[in-house]
Amino acid sequence: MVYVTRRETFSASHRLYNPQFSDAKNVELFDKCANPNGHGHNYVLEVTVAGNPEQDTGYVIDLKDLKELVRREIIQKVDHKHLNHDVDFLEGVIPTSENIARAFWEILQPNIRGARLFSIRLRETENNAVEYRGEKS
Amino acid sequence: MVYVTRRETFSASHRLYNPQFSDAKNVELFDKCANPNGHGHNYVLEVTVAGNPEQDTGYVIDLKDLKELVRREIIQKVDHKHLNHDVDFLEGVIPTSENIARAFWEILQPNIRGARLFSIRLRETENNAVEYRGEKS
Amino acid sequence: MVYVTRRETFSASHRLYNPQFSDAKNVELFDKCANPNGHGHNYVLEVTVAGNPEQDTGYVIDLKDLKELVRREIIQKVDHKHLNHDVDFLEGVIPTSENIARAFWEILQPNIRGARLFSIRLRETENNAVEYRGEKS
Amino acid sequence: MVYVTRRETFSASHRLYNPQFSDAKNVELFDKCANPNGHGHNYVLEVTVAGNPEQDTGYVIDLKDLKELVRREIIQKVDHKHLNHDVDFLEGVIPTSENIARAFWEILQPNIRGARLFSIRLRETENNAVEYRGEKS
Amino acid sequence: MVYVTRRETFSASHRLYNPQFSDAKNVELFDKCANPNGHGHNYVLEVTVAGNPEQDTGYVIDLKDLKELVRREIIQKVDHKHLNHDVDFLEGVIPTSENIARAFWEILQPNIRGARLFSIRLRETENNAVEYRGEKS
Amino acid sequence: MVYVTRRETFSASHRLYNPQFSDAKNVELFDKCANPNGHGHNYVLEVTVAGNPEQDTGYVIDLKDLKELVRREIIQKVDHKHLNHDVDFLEGVIPTSENIARAFWEILQPNIRGARLFSIRLRETENNAVEYRGEKS
Repeated sequence: MVYVTRRETFSASHRLYNPQFSDAKNVELFDKCANPNGHGHNYVLEVTVAGNPEQDTGYVIDLKDLKELVRREIIQKVDHKHLNHDVDFLEGVIPTSENIARAFWEILQPNIRGARLFSIRLRETENNAVEYRGEKS
Repeated sequence: MVYVTRRETFSASHRLYNPQFSDAKNVELFDKCANPNGHGHNYVLEVTVAGNPEQDTGYVIDLKDLKELVRREIIQKVDHKHLNHDVDFLEGVIPTSENIARAFWEILQPNIRGARLFSIRLRETENNAVEYRGEKS
Repeated sequence: MVYVTRRETFSASHRLYNPQFSDAKNVELFDKCANPNGHGHNYVLEVTVAGNPEQDTGYVIDLKDLKELVRREIIQKVDHKHLNHDVDFLEGVIPTSENIARAFWEILQPNIRGARLFSIRLRETENNAVEYRGEKS
Repeated sequence: MVYVTRRETFSASHRLYNPQFSDAKNVELFDKCANPNGHGHNYVLEVTVAGNPEQDTGYVIDLKDLKELVRREIIQKVDHKHLNHDVDFLEGVIPTSENIARAFWEILQPNIRGARLFSIRLRETENNAVEYRGEKS
Repeated sequence: MVYVTRRETFSASHRLYNPQFSDAKNVELFDKCANPNGHGHNYVLEVTVAGNPEQDTGYVIDLKDLKELVRREIIQKVDHKHLNHDVDFLEGVIPTSENIARAFWEILQPNIRGARLFSIRLRETENNAVEYRGEKS
Repeated sequence: MVYVTRRETFSASHRLYNPQFSDAKNVELFDKCANPNGHGHNYVLEVTVAGNPEQDTGYVIDLKDLKELVRREIIQKVDHKHLNHDVDFLEGVIPTSENIARAFWEILQPNIRGARLFSIRLRETENNAVEYRGEKS
């Protein structure tokens, strides 16, 4: 079994805000991430699939197909967007990296053919990153 | 003469939009960067000063002082902010990297002591960057 | 379950030397790393915790809290220090990356609340790195 | 148990081509990677071994030994080479990253002493990478 | 005046070989870079243009236009190619980074509108790079 | 004219301390960089030479020669060393990056043949760097 990783990037805005709480409570919880006008990041997304290389190609998955899948299903929907307002599949979700990674997993997991999705890694800044592997606690 | 560079980062939102033009014209000019809800970046800022190392310290400038200057005058005002709405010194400016770099120059240039500001470099994404050296064309 | 990583850096000196052995034996074991006056690195530390995002915040852990914990308990004690001479919790330890990573684990592990420490990754140079996950062999 | 990683780089050419198929079929399978004159990459190789730090040294493995092993057995045989034509142990193998990583594993695995080989990671471009951990599916 | 840089990457093979000399002389001159079957790199290309930001847009140049120009005129012609055999504008040229950078300059320089080409930077490996600014010695 | 850059790295300790001043004054001047036991860095050195590519080779300079020069004259003397105690050519010099870069210039400049030394760039941390071009103020 081999793990194959495709890296893509996107630039987006977000605001961390829970509408169930007061503004003061949101600042307490999210500090400067609760800034009403939002802020943004160059996100780095790494999608890893696991499988056996096929005999005919030596590929676990055609990375061109994986690239196109990730761009069509994810990047085109989040790049140069505001994650709180412009993205259907994040509606009602507080757009922390944790929640975004899980939302990406739900979209990609059923679309990987001939291999299985192993991990979604999302780097928000050079210092902060999350990874989701589909594990239930 | 030695050039000394301090690197800082900040995360911000912006929208490229010229209010003198129609929305259609703005999309034509700025494409997806004109998205009404904005988008964002992890900006990388490199501030370079030039001067002679002092005899007593071997420093052109104390980088701790330069760091504090850049953080106080720039980073605290733009980090986790929306550059179109939250930043006094960018009011009325289309926040392209070119314009942001020149605005940073105007703020920092009079505040550098014992050396002179040489360059403001601003990397918006891993593929796009600008540099301003105070040159008039 | 989601894995959340915080990256911090510090600059420190160390010398690889086992006082139970002769100088010649130390050079044989540690080569140029046994240089009596020591040498140094910009270490890159990645601390990963694992847990479930909380409903209210979408956070596994508040990265601001994790940052402050790592800076208070680790970075302030090792940054701009000599790891053989200036750090209480490394006394009597040969400061290889392996031993440093395990010492960091012992300090951080009891201090992570609401999630569990998953991994300490320490990059000594761009070519050499170690990772410790609390596993006993 | 601690995981220790050594990073090395090499520059090589390759062509993805399965001689059992027609040229047209190869272009269908491998697209521009089937270009008859080949193309090339700066590969980044990360070799990870796992083990217990020795009492005397604090090392899982002497990274100088691991570096020399990887350079002697791998890098010298693939650096500035054409992977389809110049490398004995890749003869008859379609040189995808998946297949190269597994070939490297077979070479290194029996040569690691006092620790066990844990992972071969091979980055072909800044966006594409594979990892092999010796797992059979 | 502001300097604006666009970064692109491509993967290609090359062989350093001067047909006016014997094979032995070529090995003496180019060492392992003269390997008959060639070798390859992930080249990083940085194209810098200089100019004044336009009043209407705040742009020196629309980076989307620059990206498309560089991709159409350069990247599509060299990516996944063998630089000695597959590239018209490198015919008869020893494909050192120096010569490649100058060839790229000649192609791009007449195509930059509203600004002037300032620099072509080409990174061949993480350790080796060249820059050409159109200067005659 | 083309600029050619070779990148090398080294790991070293240093302490910023001016023996003409009291310890208290040194702490005032150099803060934590005055720590008596020193601290260290992974320095990144970039040496740039400028010249015309030779007709026969397409090289400004053979980068293998430049690499060997830099390693023999600089890296072997500073790597895994304490810059205050172990390096002849830094004796009596406060080892700030500014002073180190100028010392490297003095060593390399007379040794570059067929091209001229253009710049010494020294990155001390990911945030702090200096560059010296042989300019007198």
